[in-house]
Amino acid sequence: MEEKKKLGAALRQSARGGGCLPRTFEIRTDLALEKKEDAAEKAKELSGVSMREWYREESRVKLTKVEILNEEGSRAMGKAVGTYITLEAGQMALKDEDYHRQVSAELAVQLKNLAEGREKRIRHLLVVGLGNSSVTPDSLGPRVIGNLNVTRHLDMEYGADFLRERGMIAVSGIVPGVMAQTGMETAEIVRGIISQTKPDCMIAIDALAARSVRRLGTTIQLTDTGIHPGSGVGNHRRALTEESLGIPVLAIGVPTVVGAAAIVQDTVQAMIRVLKGESSTQEAGDYLENLESEEQYQLIRELLEPEFGPFYVTPPDIDETVKAMSYTISEAIHQAFLPQPSFLC
Amino acid sequence: MEEKKKLGAALRQSARGGGCLPRTFEIRTDLALEKKEDAAEKAKELSGVSMREWYREESRVKLTKVEILNEEGSRAMGKAVGTYITLEAGQMALKDEDYHRQVSAELAVQLKNLAEGREKRIRHLLVVGLGNSSVTPDSLGPRVIGNLNVTRHLDMEYGADFLRERGMIAVSGIVPGVMAQTGMETAEIVRGIISQTKPDCMIAIDALAARSVRRLGTTIQLTDTGIHPGSGVGNHRRALTEESLGIPVLAIGVPTVVGAAAIVQDTVQAMIRVLKGESSTQEAGDYLENLESEEQYQLIRELLEPEFGPFYVTPPDIDETVKAMSYTISEAIHQAFLPQPSFLC
Amino acid sequence: MEEKKKLGAALRQSARGGGCLPRTFEIRTDLALEKKEDAAEKAKELSGVSMREWYREESRVKLTKVEILNEEGSRAMGKAVGTYITLEAGQMALKDEDYHRQVSAELAVQLKNLAEGREKRIRHLLVVGLGNSSVTPDSLGPRVIGNLNVTRHLDMEYGADFLRERGMIAVSGIVPGVMAQTGMETAEIVRGIISQTKPDCMIAIDALAARSVRRLGTTIQLTDTGIHPGSGVGNHRRALTEESLGIPVLAIGVPTVVGAAAIVQDTVQAMIRVLKGESSTQEAGDYLENLESEEQYQLIRELLEPEFGPFYVTPPDIDETVKAMSYTISEAIHQAFLPQPSFLC
Amino acid sequence: MEEKKKLGAALRQSARGGGCLPRTFEIRTDLALEKKEDAAEKAKELSGVSMREWYREESRVKLTKVEILNEEGSRAMGKAVGTYITLEAGQMALKDEDYHRQVSAELAVQLKNLAEGREKRIRHLLVVGLGNSSVTPDSLGPRVIGNLNVTRHLDMEYGADFLRERGMIAVSGIVPGVMAQTGMETAEIVRGIISQTKPDCMIAIDALAARSVRRLGTTIQLTDTGIHPGSGVGNHRRALTEESLGIPVLAIGVPTVVGAAAIVQDTVQAMIRVLKGESSTQEAGDYLENLESEEQYQLIRELLEPEFGPFYVTPPDIDETVKAMSYTISEAIHQAFLPQPSFLC
Repeated sequence: MEEKKKLGAALRQSARGGGCLPRTFEIRTDLALEKKEDAAEKAKELSGVSMREWYREESRVKLTKVEILNEEGSRAMGKAVGTYITLEAGQMALKDEDYHRQVSAELAVQLKNLAEGREKRIRHLLVVGLGNSSVTPDSLGPRVIGNLNVTRHLDMEYGADFLRERGMIAVSGIVPGVMAQTGMETAEIVRGIISQTKPDCMIAIDALAARSVRRLGTTIQLTDTGIHPGSGVGNHRRALTEESLGIPVLAIGVPTVVGAAAIVQDTVQAMIRVLKGESSTQEAGDYLENLESEEQYQLIRELLEPEFGPFYVTPPDIDETVKAMSYTISEAIHQAFLPQPSFLC
Repeated sequence: MEEKKKLGAALRQSARGGGCLPRTFEIRTDLALEKKEDAAEKAKELSGVSMREWYREESRVKLTKVEILNEEGSRAMGKAVGTYITLEAGQMALKDEDYHRQVSAELAVQLKNLAEGREKRIRHLLVVGLGNSSVTPDSLGPRVIGNLNVTRHLDMEYGADFLRERGMIAVSGIVPGVMAQTGMETAEIVRGIISQTKPDCMIAIDALAARSVRRLGTTIQLTDTGIHPGSGVGNHRRALTEESLGIPVLAIGVPTVVGAAAIVQDTVQAMIRVLKGESSTQEAGDYLENLESEEQYQLIRELLEPEFGPFYVTPPDIDETVKAMSYTISEAIHQAFLPQPSFLC
Repeated sequence: MEEKKKLGAALRQSARGGGCLPRTFEIRTDLALEKKEDAAEKAKELSGVSMREWYREESRVKLTKVEILNEEGSRAMGKAVGTYITLEAGQMALKDEDYHRQVSAELAVQLKNLAEGREKRIRHLLVVGLGNSSVTPDSLGPRVIGNLNVTRHLDMEYGADFLRERGMIAVSGIVPGVMAQTGMETAEIVRGIISQTKPDCMIAIDALAARSVRRLGTTIQLTDTGIHPGSGVGNHRRALTEESLGIPVLAIGVPTVVGAAAIVQDTVQAMIRVLKGESSTQEAGDYLENLESEEQYQLIRELLEPEFGPFYVTPPDIDETVKAMSYTISEAIHQAFLPQPSFLC
Repeated sequence: MEEKKKLGAALRQSARGGGCLPRTFEIRTDLALEKKEDAAEKAKELSGVSMREWYREESRVKLTKVEILNEEGSRAMGKAVGTYITLEAGQMALKDEDYHRQVSAELAVQLKNLAEGREKRIRHLLVVGLGNSSVTPDSLGPRVIGNLNVTRHLDMEYGADFLRERGMIAVSGIVPGVMAQTGMETAEIVRGIISQTKPDCMIAIDALAARSVRRLGTTIQLTDTGIHPGSGVGNHRRALTEESLGIPVLAIGVPTVVGAAAIVQDTVQAMIRVLKGESSTQEAGDYLENLESEEQYQLIRELLEPEFGPFYVTPPDIDETVKAMSYTISEAIHQAFLPQPSFLC
């Protein structure tokens, strides 16, 4: 009986992604943009990081391009060397098909640029929909694959030149599932599929954790650095990168959750502001502010453990956001990589 | 364009359940048990409230029965007059089919007692699965209806005595959806169905918001007071009660989320403990502790607004919990109300 | 044990829609168009029935309007008095978002005309998604509701004039489920909702049974006669009509299945053709052809009973068809009844 | 435009599984049992095929074991050399949880025997859920994986001896999807995963096409020959066999559809019986009966092409059948391969 309980707990813990609990306390964000904001508070200009912002009038999309140029920049940002492009638009969250179409077009342009920067002639593109289709905020990736027009099998059915004659590339797609459902690392499944089907580029779609609730459903991040361990709502443990997979890996992510820890830290910051505002409590405010990070860690840990570690915060209408965003992304992939006479008329 | 944006925002806000934003700040719980715990800190024994606890060795379930006897008790607890039975078992969260079967049996007994206390001879039972089937932690109710064996139509098909001759009652079930999907209040839909099909008892199934993460997936609350405005993950706006519907309304709820506000309050409490533990900051701790509730409200509001109001916190494995619990509940309804030769062997 | 088996069989039979088995043999079609084709073989012009066909160049949609003018026409066609508009386009079956948009626009025009013919000023429109969401070819109605922008609740949230000031009507939507899931007739649920929410027009969406496989996913039927018993994939038993519900009922249907009986009859017809083509077997062909309908019934019944009665035939890609068609229909409803600045740009 | 239409047609055709259209006419069955019945009509005892039947009183399951011993038997049966075990029970189709439990136990015994006949010590079992999760009768495989308790990742999380110390084997599971969704052959995906994760045995779960409607939901076929091209509802094109994958492949299949062609052939047979029963038409009956198979092919083809080729026939309650069967199978796998203290109490 005792044994059975232990096993159950292990299975349960595993399902909870217990193995992924961060060893060191860090308020997590998967957005390079937010990292940059954090970093910028300390030093106006980071060496090894360049950042450019612009605004597209017609689509009302704000674009930001963060380039992490070297190891120094990578250390400062806590992100891999590479390019991170962010599209921001408050209206993305609205149920407006036409507007999503404009964001798709913007994303398609960036996607095409980034892909061609890595691989001049893509002939076979594998799209991987990461995440758990039965957990709403983690279902973005599987939903994108559900919308995707795959083409790779047409050559198998209509002759080896079918795609080439039409100026099309082979597109394939997979939903690998999550470890608690498959017993396998996503990286194992993806590597196996790549070894058999030999794509020359991969796009991974993933739901992200943001630092701020304002980001949820209003931001798309596109990067050429792939997926790194510990990122995403589902907290992937192994890398899906060019280094580990042997082909360029683009990643498209949309923040759909905020880690519970972020709220806790925000509360602490607000407390400090309040305490410092009153002369009688200013000392306490200073005290809190000046706690060493290890002490802050212990303080916040008191709250976070064992309860809120892997928990996440998400809005009640996340189903609508994920559904709408999944179309924005699949449409962008179609526009970037498949000839779409319908969109050229 | 401006108009269009406003409309979109309105639709969006509506989807977010914006209309349900609490006017006054309160850390919400749908569990009478947690209310009692809060209240108990101030006064050991509340007038107008009785509470009994017991433990069932074989099923390892702890049962608690809170009876709110009168208006005084109702005011003290912030809950309607009636009976609230809670089943708690840490193991519920495990994927153990046999154990769920034992919890089902326990729940069936309480359900039958409570139903018969209200209506001696139930002939037609309507089960209502509240919540949004496409938002994982809010999908408990719809899932229970998916598992339910309905019988009411058998009389329509096999003759008016089919059920009576077999000692069975008529069971019907409905998933009314949520307001952002239907444009209607759940109460309108349910009242319409009751007026046409004339059940003599109703059971509503709902996902609840708890105060503590420990409750998620480990607690079932059963009550004879129905569903009150503002309760449930989806924050129903109108009552589903005997008073509003004309028939006894039992409600079965399982906590699947914690409001984001609860985490904020927990953080403040922990901060106070830390500050009071150091002589140099004890004053600040006292200061925070003694803030009037209005001031506390302003402090916490700074964090909560506009961002975290309607947001919720939920674990990453909530899909497994909701699936398992939905079977526990549907099985309990079957055992309590349908002859189940298979369980009597 | 015996009793238990009987009960199980009854439940099972009920799930199979056993109660809906046709008492008299008839090759079923829900399309007025196909009825007309059948009838036309016997008499070129039916009294009491008018029919008009036209073709829309830009959208490549063939439209047919069958008007059943009186009881005579109704008897001849086996359909209720009223207007039946059919949109046909082979391309509908293709995954082409732009083309679907054109069909939506065509359907929106017809829908608006038909609705305004019945009710000059619609202020509250109820859309009902008939069918079983967990059986792919019967899931059209539920999917349309999933895509629908409902608005009725906005007045409840933003003040009674919100919709009126924006020139919008109240739209509500419901997925009533099927009898084997709810224990209730769809008509009971819908009547109850109408009595509570008082719409002044209803649109029912349903998956249909066609006579010919060529119709599947290439035809949309729109009618102002509502839903009649025995129609639809799920074989509704009670009418959803103006007569039974008190408000005008439009119905939009798309054929997604062919009854198994239709294939059997086609086989018999082909056999007759073959036999008549050879002199040695011409007599047998004549014999079969001249069998009285009662004898034909007995012959075909030998095959159909007990096996193929309620079974249906459907293509393997029906999931794609139903998904695409659900957007075509929800978009048409939006265009016909909600101001869509996005489509006017 | 023309080009676009062609492409659409190609995509569409592909989705319809057009590439899988049988070149030669054959009424398809995936059940060795039905092949044997057909064959038995011609020759009472086939060389190279042995068959044994028995009945289990307690579970009311009829078991049949067909062994195809050599190439001669393989040619006669049109099935690969190997063992085919069939469990038949009319009651399987009932919603009776206890009964499903008994069938699971029976299936578990056969599964264990068959697995151990191939591989004495299984340490890592890969379960593959074939089929299309969004087409109800083809969703059996994906549903089984949804119910499956995977364990392989526990060693990765709790140390390399976690499973061994508990006497457990590593279980992994995957839903590869269908070619129209992924652009890849299932065999490519599975081979890739095997190459990375190195299971020593695989079980494939698939929905089957039967010859007779009576088989639907009442029969389970278990075989050690894997999955062969053209089998299953989805008509896999490449083999999933020990020969192609390098590890033993067991397959569990449940018939959920009958090909439309089967109904056509049944009609022809019934017609022949009717014609032969009348002296005036006996000659025609003889004529039809004695048509060479090529002529019969032409006759039936007239009906089947282009319409009914890949279409299938399925009952309206197939969702309930697939759901129930998916639990029967996942439970059997658990009992056969995972220690289940809960079932030993």
